[in-house]
Amino acid sequence: MLFAVRMDVVLPLDLDPGLRDELLATEKAYSQKLQREGKWLHLWRVVGEYSNLSVFDVSDNGELHDLLWNLPLFKYMSVSVTPLAQHPSALAG
Amino acid sequence: MLFAVRMDVVLPLDLDPGLRDELLATEKAYSQKLQREGKWLHLWRVVGEYSNLSVFDVSDNGELHDLLWNLPLFKYMSVSVTPLAQHPSALAG
Amino acid sequence: MLFAVRMDVVLPLDLDPGLRDELLATEKAYSQKLQREGKWLHLWRVVGEYSNLSVFDVSDNGELHDLLWNLPLFKYMSVSVTPLAQHPSALAG
Amino acid sequence: MLFAVRMDVVLPLDLDPGLRDELLATEKAYSQKLQREGKWLHLWRVVGEYSNLSVFDVSDNGELHDLLWNLPLFKYMSVSVTPLAQHPSALAG
Amino acid sequence: MLFAVRMDVVLPLDLDPGLRDELLATEKAYSQKLQREGKWLHLWRVVGEYSNLSVFDVSDNGELHDLLWNLPLFKYMSVSVTPLAQHPSALAG
Amino acid sequence: MLFAVRMDVVLPLDLDPGLRDELLATEKAYSQKLQREGKWLHLWRVVGEYSNLSVFDVSDNGELHDLLWNLPLFKYMSVSVTPLAQHPSALAG
Amino acid sequence: MLFAVRMDVVLPLDLDPGLRDELLATEKAYSQKLQREGKWLHLWRVVGEYSNLSVFDVSDNGELHDLLWNLPLFKYMSVSVTPLAQHPSALAG
Amino acid sequence: MLFAVRMDVVLPLDLDPGLRDELLATEKAYSQKLQREGKWLHLWRVVGEYSNLSVFDVSDNGELHDLLWNLPLFKYMSVSVTPLAQHPSALAG
Amino acid sequence: MLFAVRMDVVLPLDLDPGLRDELLATEKAYSQKLQREGKWLHLWRVVGEYSNLSVFDVSDNGELHDLLWNLPLFKYMSVSVTPLAQHPSALAG
Amino acid sequence: MLFAVRMDVVLPLDLDPGLRDELLATEKAYSQKLQREGKWLHLWRVVGEYSNLSVFDVSDNGELHDLLWNLPLFKYMSVSVTPLAQHPSALAG
Repeated sequence: MLFAVRMDVVLPLDLDPGLRDELLATEKAYSQKLQREGKWLHLWRVVGEYSNLSVFDVSDNGELHDLLWNLPLFKYMSVSVTPLAQHPSALAG
Repeated sequence: MLFAVRMDVVLPLDLDPGLRDELLATEKAYSQKLQREGKWLHLWRVVGEYSNLSVFDVSDNGELHDLLWNLPLFKYMSVSVTPLAQHPSALAG
Repeated sequence: MLFAVRMDVVLPLDLDPGLRDELLATEKAYSQKLQREGKWLHLWRVVGEYSNLSVFDVSDNGELHDLLWNLPLFKYMSVSVTPLAQHPSALAG
Repeated sequence: MLFAVRMDVVLPLDLDPGLRDELLATEKAYSQKLQREGKWLHLWRVVGEYSNLSVFDVSDNGELHDLLWNLPLFKYMSVSVTPLAQHPSALAG
Repeated sequence: MLFAVRMDVVLPLDLDPGLRDELLATEKAYSQKLQREGKWLHLWRVVGEYSNLSVFDVSDNGELHDLLWNLPLFKYMSVSVTPLAQHPSALAG
Repeated sequence: MLFAVRMDVVLPLDLDPGLRDELLATEKAYSQKLQREGKWLHLWRVVGEYSNLSVFDVSDNGELHDLLWNLPLFKYMSVSVTPLAQHPSALAG
Repeated sequence: MLFAVRMDVVLPLDLDPGLRDELLATEKAYSQKLQREGKWLHLWRVVGEYSNLSVFDVSDNGELHDLLWNLPLFKYMSVSVTPLAQHPSALAG
Repeated sequence: MLFAVRMDVVLPLDLDPGLRDELLATEKAYSQKLQREGKWLHLWRVVGEYSNLSVFDVSDNGELHDLLWNLPLFKYMSVSVTPLAQHPSALAG
Repeated sequence: MLFAVRMDVVLPLDLDPGLRDELLATEKAYSQKLQREGKWLHLWRVVGEYSNLSVFDVSDNGELHDLLWNLPLFKYMSVSVTPLAQHPSALAG
Repeated sequence: MLFAVRMDVVLPLDLDPGLRDELLATEKAYSQKLQREGKWLHLWRVVGEYSNLSVFDVSDNGELHDLLWNLPLFKYMSVSVTPLAQHPSALAG
């Protein structure tokens, strides 16, 4: 079941650089684990913004919430979720 | 080069049913031709709305504009375009 | 799996009264069938507006889209969908 | 008398972790007491956000205001209230 | 129990003048009956707009919805409702 | 001459509790003085928000501005003003 | 007493040209009469839009509403009103 | 050449009172110098807000930008600019 | 003196095709005359929309308003104007 | 390939003046290097705001993102990007 998710990140201007690097490394590892598991299906940078557009493939709403809630950067993000369905003109099933 | 595109369709309430069917068939054929050519990469229905979220893979801005402008339903749509780039945490290149 | 759905209805001012009555009766029957099946879990009127706030219980995004798309009043509505999950403080599971 | 209430929480990034845990525990207890009393009828998490969608069943506007005003997290929330009424197509009374 | 209600009216430009006069007379009579009964507590014109700001005093949400739904101009209006409560600094009870 | 005024209050999270109590007491006294003088005609709490909806009866725009500007909580508020006039359907003059 | 007023005009695309000319002439005469009387103090075109920004000098809210309500183009306009007061740094009284 | 300019001021809550008084005095002097030179044509307080609506008469866009950029309070303001032109119904040239 | 102008076009769905072609040809000729005169400095299509982003070089606000007001498509457009000035980091004068 | 980019800058009020000057000098040098290379095609100040409207000429989305992401002021900006295409009425190719 697919969901489009847009994440907009605002890091505090005075975030400690060491903590920042650690956070970003943890976020990357977390994201890549989910990509390898096939749950974080697409991950694109929005040009010119500290934002991404992603597509998740999960078994239900609860799983999606847990994945997002546990993002290492979650408390620095605003997140919006759009549920997707099969389009009648889409070739792919 | 990837772009996310959201299309929201509003058909006139008094559109002739025959014309409507014809338009939708043309739109579907047009969309599937572009999907087969690898230019209309993803096409998802937004749940509960007469809308889609799509991703296009084109060689430049001009090609994207031409593809969208020539959509059979173009004059019944509002369209918004978001340029995408490679995300540093994305596994896929 | 639960989704909150808000539907805002705008009927054309010149809608034929007979057609209008028929549409509303069909909509009511459709809605009550889904309520009896346990899919349209809650249906509330928003005070002062031709709108409702509903909660659906469906097996996936695709089922929700089909239920909404087939609403007899769908083409007269704007619809917005909010996916819901279990809240950690909620008593009910 | 029913009201839909959406609460969006923003905790300060530098909130003391001990205080935070205490606040959340108090909020949970407060919420569950009202749920047990039948006043906080529904409590759902909005997927991907630090937000909930709730339905309250209270005797009047004043009671609703007091319940919300006394939420332990009230000063960290923005709250919006939508009065609900019986829908003519709803099976439940 | 008090509610602030703002009503914004848009009459169709081609509304038959006779029908228009009749509608406005019915609306006025309806409004004045509710004012006399003490349910439509305040009725003010918003300066420069075809709009009013009103305060209703009703026994519950359902009564308010019925009063608004039955406004002769209801289908030409957009309506927004704000529930009110006693303010701790207000002299009047 | 009547004006509707909505005031939304945001107190700093770290406001000193003693200062806060003093501010609120001053605000209450200020508000009640104006109510007794018949200038602050109505004062209602907006349910679920740290906000009020008020109606002022003043001799001109300048007087209204001075009353609002001197609110003890003014620098913690956002304020919006709507000029009101006699409604042709209102019973009260 | 001064008020800033912005008026945005939308004439129906199919308005009869003779009626249109008549309306615009009546509007101009109405506006110039009020300017000569000193009530419509300033009248500026907003560049690139069928809109104006005006300042009115009236004795009270009710007079302003009547002046605006009786604009020949009123039913083709959206109007927003901003009450003004003496600025402490202004040289003019 | 005329421009309408709206300035909304937000002073930091913890601004040093001495610095604040100095800033406001400098702002007032700056504003009155421009008024005397005929460049800051009108300056009105927006009722109930820490805002003004102004009209500037300058020789070009660049001059307007320099005047605004050098406002002593500029870094505490949000500013919006509306270019104005002669209105065909205006008596004044 | 430079201004950025965004124009969004909405042609009526039932516009006569002959009239439409004539309008578009007149618009094109009008636009190209102004480009040749150096007044319509830049003209870009916004990708995926019936819109353009333009830059005009005019002697004053009044000239810009006249150029826009006389666009053959003016009554089918919404237009927004942003005055521009020399940027301190720009190489070009 | 052209993109319009609007950048709105908010510097922290307590930014160290030395750091601020250094940042602005670096930003200017960065911007002028890109202008000289023909990638930052236009750079205009938005009148009355700490903002610019720019046009970039880049080979693809990724290049644009990298240029913007590396702006010395990037973390103090909000940025919005609009892809542009050749307009059929434009004289320039």
